[in-house]
Amino acid sequence: MSFASRLWQAVDAKGSPAMIGLDPRLERLPAPFRDRAAGDSQAAADALIDYHRALLDVVGPRVAVVKPQAAFFEVLGHHGMRALADAVEAAHRHHLLVVMDAKRGDIGSTSEAYARTYLDPTSPGFPASDALTVNPYLGEDACEPFLRTADAAGAGLFVLVKTSNPGAGCFQDHGTPPLADVVADKVAAWGAERRDASGWSPVGAVVGATRPDELAHFRARMPHAPLLLPGFGFQGGDADGLAAAFDAHGHGAVVNASRSILYAHEREDLQHLADWQDRTAVAVDEMTAALRAVALGT
Amino acid sequence: MSFASRLWQAVDAKGSPAMIGLDPRLERLPAPFRDRAAGDSQAAADALIDYHRALLDVVGPRVAVVKPQAAFFEVLGHHGMRALADAVEAAHRHHLLVVMDAKRGDIGSTSEAYARTYLDPTSPGFPASDALTVNPYLGEDACEPFLRTADAAGAGLFVLVKTSNPGAGCFQDHGTPPLADVVADKVAAWGAERRDASGWSPVGAVVGATRPDELAHFRARMPHAPLLLPGFGFQGGDADGLAAAFDAHGHGAVVNASRSILYAHEREDLQHLADWQDRTAVAVDEMTAALRAVALGT
Repeated sequence: MSFASRLWQAVDAKGSPAMIGLDPRLERLPAPFRDRAAGDSQAAADALIDYHRALLDVVGPRVAVVKPQAAFFEVLGHHGMRALADAVEAAHRHHLLVVMDAKRGDIGSTSEAYARTYLDPTSPGFPASDALTVNPYLGEDACEPFLRTADAAGAGLFVLVKTSNPGAGCFQDHGTPPLADVVADKVAAWGAERRDASGWSPVGAVVGATRPDELAHFRARMPHAPLLLPGFGFQGGDADGLAAAFDAHGHGAVVNASRSILYAHEREDLQHLADWQDRTAVAVDEMTAALRAVALGT
Repeated sequence: MSFASRLWQAVDAKGSPAMIGLDPRLERLPAPFRDRAAGDSQAAADALIDYHRALLDVVGPRVAVVKPQAAFFEVLGHHGMRALADAVEAAHRHHLLVVMDAKRGDIGSTSEAYARTYLDPTSPGFPASDALTVNPYLGEDACEPFLRTADAAGAGLFVLVKTSNPGAGCFQDHGTPPLADVVADKVAAWGAERRDASGWSPVGAVVGATRPDELAHFRARMPHAPLLLPGFGFQGGDADGLAAAFDAHGHGAVVNASRSILYAHEREDLQHLADWQDRTAVAVDEMTAALRAVALGT
């Protein structure tokens, strides 16, 4: 089954377009893990392994997809890569889809080595994810090895089109049309050749739109691309701004949250719940409720 | 001492602006290492560790700087990260400068985690390199944590401005002025605040110019930035095209070669030399001679 079909099927099964970002900051882990992580890199990586297994027990039944952020594992060196591999495997044991957020981009055989690392199940060094985030700066031929490897693996890509940082426009808005539109058109073109029976493409896009009209613009420009939304304002009524990303079936996008879920154990209003897992579960369920209202109108 | 001063001092000491790229392809290692690398990821990583130690014994006395290509280590998972760390440490034992070619780029605290991983000597997970390649697509604020971390560590950056792949212009030439010029202007501006006593900045640029006039254009646009040149045509008279990158002291750029050095052991014309090390040494010395003629006019 194509990546997009697997993605929407999983979203339907869980009734949630939420994606949980795994961006572990050691000093903000729940207490027992935080204490263990204060040791050396090996101890910290071991703590992360146990933390993510426990976290995935909470979020696994509630969401369809997780997004490990490679940087927060790489900072622990080879021990961190071991913890990252374990998180991918633990997520797969919960039948979650894994979008590896590594934002890789290089040329030729180097792009191919990155693609094999993170997407190719026959590459033995590291467990394959279901999709990878890719930085397009180096151009179409530099993205080609990622596309080819994803095709062979039945995997997806999320190409950075417009990022969510305040200064995203610095280069992404350059030119007429803006660079982000040019990249979006490439994403649409790469996807057009690869659409599955339901019409969706495995070539998605990261769209950190900060206004509803901007999101609608990119949705129209890439009508068949799964969108990865960084989740601006999904809390409260602001989630309405995300509606343009979804079709009538609630398909079209996954919305990421990292800190609001990973730090839920610190929330004052949830201290009546003894376990960090219960606080985390509440935060995930709140997010899903807000997103369902937008994606499905329910 | 600032990164640029350390770089030119090392270039002067070795009499060579050559940089050796460590892009290990397992199937093209010299025979004994290739045979060992045919095992599992752990065996392959162990073979890479021994190979790079032996390679650095050859190139260490001959050049000033090496550039490990992270992708070819990452593909071996956590074992590969162990081999990458060992290569950095082995290069430093030879007093070589290490430019980590990881082309990282992300936002906020994620950029900071990447910067700490590869540049911060107080971050215990991975040995610090002397400089890191950075992808600018996400914008100025996304590059800021790399700049800040490099400042604190006395390290350098090489920002991707114009890459060397045939399709580099796909996005890098977009707009008027072209995007690559806009990025070059940012590199120049970031560097202007950071110039050392000799006038050089620690914020360098990757410039894969394919024509001498294009290289001269970027040199003029970033007059104080160390340039990392992918080394088009450094063999034969074509090295002349690189002259614009250098000042009268032979400073201003380092020129990378990977395959021409790493595969020198396969060269037909060098089979009279029994050891792969001797063939490699010849290739490095040839490169240095060609580059000295251009950089120093000698």
